[in-house]
Amino acid sequence: MSRTLVLGGARSGKSAHAERLAAQSGKDIVYVATASAGDAEMARRIAAHRADRPAHWATVEEPLALAATLEQWRAPHRLVLVDCLTLWLTNLLFADATDYPEVGAIALPRRFHDERAALLAQLDSGAGDVVFVSNEVGMGIVPFGAVTRAFADEAGRLNQAIAAASDNVVFVAAGLPLVLKGAAC
Amino acid sequence: MSRTLVLGGARSGKSAHAERLAAQSGKDIVYVATASAGDAEMARRIAAHRADRPAHWATVEEPLALAATLEQWRAPHRLVLVDCLTLWLTNLLFADATDYPEVGAIALPRRFHDERAALLAQLDSGAGDVVFVSNEVGMGIVPFGAVTRAFADEAGRLNQAIAAASDNVVFVAAGLPLVLKGAAC
Amino acid sequence: MSRTLVLGGARSGKSAHAERLAAQSGKDIVYVATASAGDAEMARRIAAHRADRPAHWATVEEPLALAATLEQWRAPHRLVLVDCLTLWLTNLLFADATDYPEVGAIALPRRFHDERAALLAQLDSGAGDVVFVSNEVGMGIVPFGAVTRAFADEAGRLNQAIAAASDNVVFVAAGLPLVLKGAAC
Repeated sequence: MSRTLVLGGARSGKSAHAERLAAQSGKDIVYVATASAGDAEMARRIAAHRADRPAHWATVEEPLALAATLEQWRAPHRLVLVDCLTLWLTNLLFADATDYPEVGAIALPRRFHDERAALLAQLDSGAGDVVFVSNEVGMGIVPFGAVTRAFADEAGRLNQAIAAASDNVVFVAAGLPLVLKGAAC
Repeated sequence: MSRTLVLGGARSGKSAHAERLAAQSGKDIVYVATASAGDAEMARRIAAHRADRPAHWATVEEPLALAATLEQWRAPHRLVLVDCLTLWLTNLLFADATDYPEVGAIALPRRFHDERAALLAQLDSGAGDVVFVSNEVGMGIVPFGAVTRAFADEAGRLNQAIAAASDNVVFVAAGLPLVLKGAAC
Repeated sequence: MSRTLVLGGARSGKSAHAERLAAQSGKDIVYVATASAGDAEMARRIAAHRADRPAHWATVEEPLALAATLEQWRAPHRLVLVDCLTLWLTNLLFADATDYPEVGAIALPRRFHDERAALLAQLDSGAGDVVFVSNEVGMGIVPFGAVTRAFADEAGRLNQAIAAASDNVVFVAAGLPLVLKGAAC
């Protein structure tokens, strides 16, 4: 049983790297897509990604309830590939069309805190391989707007928490992996 | 014959690192500048960069036709240093003053696709060392605007394609190199 | 005597890593906070950070005169931890409420140049361990606005200069270190 985090920037090749890891595992693959086709651009991106994956992989779409999805699908003969944590975080922060203030303290939704805690607990207790894909978003200029900064903060904190709970962590740039933790993968 | 990609953020020291690699090669250096002095700020940056380079290096300015420039200058006794791919991409996307929509699908210029394919083909078939400098632009918050996102996507895809076609890839941060592929360089 | 630079994105875990290095040194720790509580959000962040640090560490708040602060506190039995250089740079650039133009050449404050030179000189000549925390801000899309670009340029140049003057440089992502220079730390 192994838990792996594949971290990288936008269009870094992180999804392709994670899919290669999954294919090499020899296990049955369950692909968990956290993207929601909210607009036409996103729908095109989702369809393009799906066409790139092997047809025999099972695909599950779950924008919010990630812990329950892992609970349902993780098993010793399977590898669950979650792509990606950053969209899941976005979905949780904006699921309820919350009216965040432009400045000042941001109160994040209760559901975000609950889902995050449940995910970390499931990671610890469940059986079966998991590979997470996640974005590095904190290496540019700090963006304007309190909610965007809160998002950047939570994305970074989430990456740290998942990395700490993982056996392997790999950073991908230009399609090439740098091992941050665990075995080369 | 070696092809090297030096990847890094803005002001990461990537150009200085690439120039060091070039100087150490012992070959005749042809420096290909893709920057165009579109405004006064850029003209100052270009002049400052040029003053930093050895006077005996040949300088070629080519904002768009990179494959043809490599074809013309690559030779066993030379090293061609291209600085940088990200500006070349920008030049291609905005060469024709295209009126990109704010949202929705972005149709990239035909010339971009042609030049990109020609560059990758030239890399494979040509003889003589090449060193590319390129920006990592995908590790911040995903920017607003369909064309900016399309640019970020293409910049990342281009880095992946050039990295796959290169013998050596090095990531530079704070002036220090991390080898992603090939020999330490 | 060692000088260490801990570099990373926002919420990368760089501060926690630097604090771990400090705690492991066995020396008396002087924590130099460069943050100014300019608004309520920043005041909350500062208070939260402070609550996380050991109570017996000395804390010094110094937004601008970093060289003089190092001169005063560096000693063989102490480790001075500076968190962070990027805020110090921001403080210097905006200390005098300078009215930077939106486009064109940016004349940075004389005090910035003086403080930067003094810091690099002090680093070379002083005795006693120093650990710097600094942000990587150059790996996103190049931001709009001449002053923001000038800030990004200076932040990158500062990281290069401090890295060159340091014995150890470590890059932190998702809480995990990658050694760029010197011993694993």
